[in-house]
Amino acid sequence: MFCEEIHMKKIAIDAMGGDNAPKAIVEGVNRALAEFSDIEIQLYGDEAKIKEYLTATDRVSIIHTDEKINSDDEPAKAIRRKKKASMVLGAQAVKEGTADAVISAGNTGALLAAGLFVVGRIKGIDRPGLMSTLPTLDGKGYDMLDLGANAENTPKHLHQYAILGSFYAKNVRGIDKPRVGLLNNGTEATKGDPLHKETYALLAEDDSLNFVGNVEARDLMNGVADVVVSDGFTGNAVLKTMEGTALNIMGSLKSSIKSGGWKAKLGALLLKDSLYSLKDTMDYSSAGGAVLFGLKAPVVKCHGSSDAQAVYYTIRQARKMLDTNVVGQLVEAFTPKD
Amino acid sequence: MFCEEIHMKKIAIDAMGGDNAPKAIVEGVNRALAEFSDIEIQLYGDEAKIKEYLTATDRVSIIHTDEKINSDDEPAKAIRRKKKASMVLGAQAVKEGTADAVISAGNTGALLAAGLFVVGRIKGIDRPGLMSTLPTLDGKGYDMLDLGANAENTPKHLHQYAILGSFYAKNVRGIDKPRVGLLNNGTEATKGDPLHKETYALLAEDDSLNFVGNVEARDLMNGVADVVVSDGFTGNAVLKTMEGTALNIMGSLKSSIKSGGWKAKLGALLLKDSLYSLKDTMDYSSAGGAVLFGLKAPVVKCHGSSDAQAVYYTIRQARKMLDTNVVGQLVEAFTPKD
Repeated sequence: MFCEEIHMKKIAIDAMGGDNAPKAIVEGVNRALAEFSDIEIQLYGDEAKIKEYLTATDRVSIIHTDEKINSDDEPAKAIRRKKKASMVLGAQAVKEGTADAVISAGNTGALLAAGLFVVGRIKGIDRPGLMSTLPTLDGKGYDMLDLGANAENTPKHLHQYAILGSFYAKNVRGIDKPRVGLLNNGTEATKGDPLHKETYALLAEDDSLNFVGNVEARDLMNGVADVVVSDGFTGNAVLKTMEGTALNIMGSLKSSIKSGGWKAKLGALLLKDSLYSLKDTMDYSSAGGAVLFGLKAPVVKCHGSSDAQAVYYTIRQARKMLDTNVVGQLVEAFTPKD
Repeated sequence: MFCEEIHMKKIAIDAMGGDNAPKAIVEGVNRALAEFSDIEIQLYGDEAKIKEYLTATDRVSIIHTDEKINSDDEPAKAIRRKKKASMVLGAQAVKEGTADAVISAGNTGALLAAGLFVVGRIKGIDRPGLMSTLPTLDGKGYDMLDLGANAENTPKHLHQYAILGSFYAKNVRGIDKPRVGLLNNGTEATKGDPLHKETYALLAEDDSLNFVGNVEARDLMNGVADVVVSDGFTGNAVLKTMEGTALNIMGSLKSSIKSGGWKAKLGALLLKDSLYSLKDTMDYSSAGGAVLFGLKAPVVKCHGSSDAQAVYYTIRQARKMLDTNVVGQLVEAFTPKD
């Protein structure tokens, strides 16, 4: 009999984080285990509650803990004080090498802190950035960072984000020479404040990047770049504006249909497919969660409102990151050459 | 016979700026002149072309010029070199006191430059900001600045924007104690980079303001504040993200209906009222154009794609600014007290 050795990918999951925990988390895990034979899942959290939903029996273990971090906990403090919290234990497992990646749908700030202080930065990367794959109309999406892990950035940080994003787009999304755009207040090369002007110069002179110049926020959904580099303050504002605008438009349409009588209701019924296709365009959960990128291992944040499917997508994403060894490649790239 | 003296408001209008000039501009002027008996309009541009559309005969004059600023002209250079451009002549009329306000739908950068270098700043205001009334779901809207007149701002600038926005919301929109929010990357008082932390402190200690704290970009459409203060770089990114997201969602829905066969088309027909009401919610042209606020006179930018109605709304807005003397009040407020 011929046996191929499979490298098992060990993924630590905070079962207690997010609005729908532990149900959505565990159901996502069930699905991922059925789909991928090369992953092992460690579920951190309340054993009794986890068992209510866990149908998978193979390649899964539960590490019981009563403690968890709440959504309103002060991040850095929570990480320091709640040493037995499900999220912290997951990060700790990565640090100790018993897990290869960690996923949580809980408190974003706390996960960022756990990533930085427990998992740790790749040597040479100054400020890991929060990165998500965001939707474009053509369905291809783009990777944007920093989405708010940092309130302040230097040109060097932004240059590193361009490299990080390019590695991700190439390895995880299979884009050969990812086009890198710098989010700025105009497309001309001379635009922006000193931070963005200096970053432009750094990106333009780095031959390892496929830099396509400045991009504007209004063109992001049109797919002007595969990787969009931004300082954390602006990136955070842009992400929240997108979310707010999309949610409010959809909500406003919904309430207008509700109050529009039988004509509007029938119309909505007939338009169902179009409305769903619009919802699909705006929904980017199939790309997975937000990666705190630049750490020694994948640390991935699921949206707090994630359902089982979104959790499954995030596990798939972490698996892909491990499979392509994108973090290992980054470590190599940022190691000073003699 | 009893005569009430009417103070005539003289508004200079660049007839040649924008995608639909001079038709949309002149038709907007026709309507405004019919509506308001206390305005006089000066139309700057190609006399023959203007006359094709001008039906009003009273309180309107044409100042002919062959020169105009194009949308791709380099702003500062255009203002310096095209001294006879319709936009520049309009600004010049304000400087010389023959007009009280100037409106253009042309090159935004050039109008900002004309505002700063021809009309001039109010003494004591360091960096005039670009301000628009933006849409909320409840239809009340909020005034946001700076939307991109500046690439860099100091806490002092942002403090001045809070004062400017409050004066505008009170005078032009009739809001008694306008709630001022600071756009930041979280609602907690401790959030942000040094710029936003220092601005928070300045706003909090200014008793003349009704400061309600930090606001996040995702909540803007829900009406969290009447005035939203932002640095120009972030404000510009947020505005462009809103525009891009809204346009792309509506465009995506439209193309999905088009390709959706008879069911989708019938559905869209039945849903017409709901879709129009959504479009109305997102359309904020009834509030007028973007004001470069902090100058010695109202300088107002109509959207480049403005139709006659949007031009009319912008004239109405400039008239209201002159009627309430909001600029005169600002001059007073920023004059050092003995």
